[in-house]
Amino acid sequence: MKPSIPKGTRDFSPMEMAMRNYIFDNIKAVFRLYGFEQIETPAMENLSTLMGKYGEEGDKLLFKILNSGDFLESASQDALTEKNSQRLTSSISEKGLRYDLTVPFARYVVQHQNEISFPFKRYQIQPVWRADRPQKGRYREFYQCDVDVVGSNSLLNEVELIQIVDEVYRRLNINVVLKINDRKILTGIAEIIGQADKIVDITVAIDKMDKIGLENVNKELLEKGISQSAVSTLEPILLLKGSNAEKLNTLKTVLAKSEVGQDGIIELESIFTYLKSLGVKTEVELDLTLARGLNYYTGAIFEVKAKDVEIGSITGGGRYDNLTGVFGLPGVSGVGISFGADRIYDVLNQLNNFPAESLDCTKLLFVSFGDAELAYCLPWLQTIRNAGVASEIYPEPAKMKKQMGYADAKKIPFVAIVGGDEMAQGKVMLKDMTSGDQALVSLEELIEKIN
Amino acid sequence: MKPSIPKGTRDFSPMEMAMRNYIFDNIKAVFRLYGFEQIETPAMENLSTLMGKYGEEGDKLLFKILNSGDFLESASQDALTEKNSQRLTSSISEKGLRYDLTVPFARYVVQHQNEISFPFKRYQIQPVWRADRPQKGRYREFYQCDVDVVGSNSLLNEVELIQIVDEVYRRLNINVVLKINDRKILTGIAEIIGQADKIVDITVAIDKMDKIGLENVNKELLEKGISQSAVSTLEPILLLKGSNAEKLNTLKTVLAKSEVGQDGIIELESIFTYLKSLGVKTEVELDLTLARGLNYYTGAIFEVKAKDVEIGSITGGGRYDNLTGVFGLPGVSGVGISFGADRIYDVLNQLNNFPAESLDCTKLLFVSFGDAELAYCLPWLQTIRNAGVASEIYPEPAKMKKQMGYADAKKIPFVAIVGGDEMAQGKVMLKDMTSGDQALVSLEELIEKIN
Repeated sequence: MKPSIPKGTRDFSPMEMAMRNYIFDNIKAVFRLYGFEQIETPAMENLSTLMGKYGEEGDKLLFKILNSGDFLESASQDALTEKNSQRLTSSISEKGLRYDLTVPFARYVVQHQNEISFPFKRYQIQPVWRADRPQKGRYREFYQCDVDVVGSNSLLNEVELIQIVDEVYRRLNINVVLKINDRKILTGIAEIIGQADKIVDITVAIDKMDKIGLENVNKELLEKGISQSAVSTLEPILLLKGSNAEKLNTLKTVLAKSEVGQDGIIELESIFTYLKSLGVKTEVELDLTLARGLNYYTGAIFEVKAKDVEIGSITGGGRYDNLTGVFGLPGVSGVGISFGADRIYDVLNQLNNFPAESLDCTKLLFVSFGDAELAYCLPWLQTIRNAGVASEIYPEPAKMKKQMGYADAKKIPFVAIVGGDEMAQGKVMLKDMTSGDQALVSLEELIEKIN
Repeated sequence: MKPSIPKGTRDFSPMEMAMRNYIFDNIKAVFRLYGFEQIETPAMENLSTLMGKYGEEGDKLLFKILNSGDFLESASQDALTEKNSQRLTSSISEKGLRYDLTVPFARYVVQHQNEISFPFKRYQIQPVWRADRPQKGRYREFYQCDVDVVGSNSLLNEVELIQIVDEVYRRLNINVVLKINDRKILTGIAEIIGQADKIVDITVAIDKMDKIGLENVNKELLEKGISQSAVSTLEPILLLKGSNAEKLNTLKTVLAKSEVGQDGIIELESIFTYLKSLGVKTEVELDLTLARGLNYYTGAIFEVKAKDVEIGSITGGGRYDNLTGVFGLPGVSGVGISFGADRIYDVLNQLNNFPAESLDCTKLLFVSFGDAELAYCLPWLQTIRNAGVASEIYPEPAKMKKQMGYADAKKIPFVAIVGGDEMAQGKVMLKDMTSGDQALVSLEELIEKIN
């Protein structure tokens, strides 16, 4: 029976790793360029750290680790008698696998608060685990790439995160649109219509405008219990169109009486001004339907979509004012975004946008014929490696076809062939695997040709 | 209550990550230079893949993951009634965290055998988890860096692995000795004295020679039930001294009648010849006490120790002939080594051998005074970042002392200070944080100075 791996998990082959590393390396390089530093946290966290942070559904999706040793000894007898799995869990499991990087980061900030020099600009690239039902594009183990600043209220941080988005996708050669919203504007809208609890219904309705039109949206809003006067007040917001500046102008009028709404408008205006003066090229679009975990964000909210590929958001985040409060450190504001490596991978794959040079590892293969050739090739190989060129020799004198097939499979661009003639002349026959060209070259010529 | 992490696990701070990345980056660069390609496997494996591969003790040290949902529904009723934790486990847990990278690699090779072009040169750098009792230098989560070739019997692979050891420790500036042995020589010794089952006792005895001397070692061997004639036969081996060539010469005589022993001698002789001709500088020492998981290795066995730091082995490995047999693919020989990142970290730390430039991330900090200065600094910052220099601006006009403290804590080597004078002259005041020197510089001068 062939061995297998748990459903929803993946092996990554050398080619897939090269493609993934291309993404991670680009993202990391940009994070570092902006002064962010890497941290890592353990795969396992105490369940007391994780439970209750992702809602009831999230608690169920945590992978829980069975206590070591005779775990039944301290198991809840009542839970066993009742056969109550959920109740039993807390007495036989103390640890779980991390579900995201945000909660471990909040835990890290509180635990290490005395070692950290705030504002703390950190990035973290690690796998997370969720016991979700596996489906296309959704895995039980996947990587997150998070970048956050905590301990600073400055909008400059929001601006830098957008610059990072701009630079990452420029380097990866993906056309994107960055959608932006502000929780304060949404709060302002709820204030103006006097129904704070209906904000979710309203964003859903705004989202449907294109599909079903104003009349039907208004009908839905009334059915949801929103008053006729509130629906009338909302109308200019439902009809919002045009540039970000035009949208903000309309909002200024509609939200004239909401202080928090005005704050949100000023925030977005500042951000837009910065982006313009810094020449950020990514299209940034104010989108009032953007809410992403409404209860979590307190200021700007971001989401990035690829323009040329039909796929969900590939990056998202926002400002949160109280991430660390739940661990006993209130009043620390932060803002962050998360790059979805798996979706970015899918986008690059569909666009066929992985640069060839990022995918080959070994540049040169020496084929093997026998001991004499081997003795001739090994010093060459060493010199070439000392010159920093990734290279190898087929470790045994297998059939030529097999050795060439090996070079093909590994996408090695050059092959060096050595027989009696080449040895007599102190050269090697260098074959360019792409063009098929062959040339007799010296050691120096070979290194120059490959580099 | 301050939050915490599970015992035996660690957070890695930005400084620790920089030090760890310095190690990983060097190791990876050498692996790639030799034509090895990266793979990754899931953190979770099916318990059927892991159980029984690490002995009874190993099975207990596996972290097991509780099945999702109502796991008690399919739990063994007998095990519950007996309160038998061990028996219950198999009915409430199907997955475990990987214990090493070797078994997942074997599983990978078998599962993907039709996609792999052999010989398969792979490396893998991922964490592993063991429910060991935590103690100084031993963790429940730690990284392994494994490099293996499977599908080739050639000794050239052993030689390349030793070259990799040589190159990695040259780059990391650690003096090491590589101890080498061959399982075939140990088998030969057991053959010669006619007591194959006593091979462990013999290696232990050889190991004690320095401490307790020949007479006491012989006494111990007799007490272990080894015959007087066998002890006499062993004597030249216990007294082995001198160069590797001298040791091999003695062994040739002692093992004259063991075919497998002779094979082992020839293997080591070939390896030594290659190493000499390739100019490998690392000290390589034939050590007959080296056994490392005797039942696992079938040919050469390696172990690397740091010369200047008192610590266990920092790298080890060997040739194995049947790694994939247990998963249904017999006859695939491989050889590999594993670098212990945590111990290498400790060695570099004790030697204070981390190069300063590998540890700083941000090269330049702009201090913040107010809006006018900010408007002046932001375009500079952007140009500097476009030049590839990691740089940042303190995001708000905090007190000077606080901003300089931030630069200190992050070990940022340069700080740019901008006030009215600097702006009037179109320059910035650049402070070298190491020397304390200050200089008024233009944008071009600044970039040149920092690079």
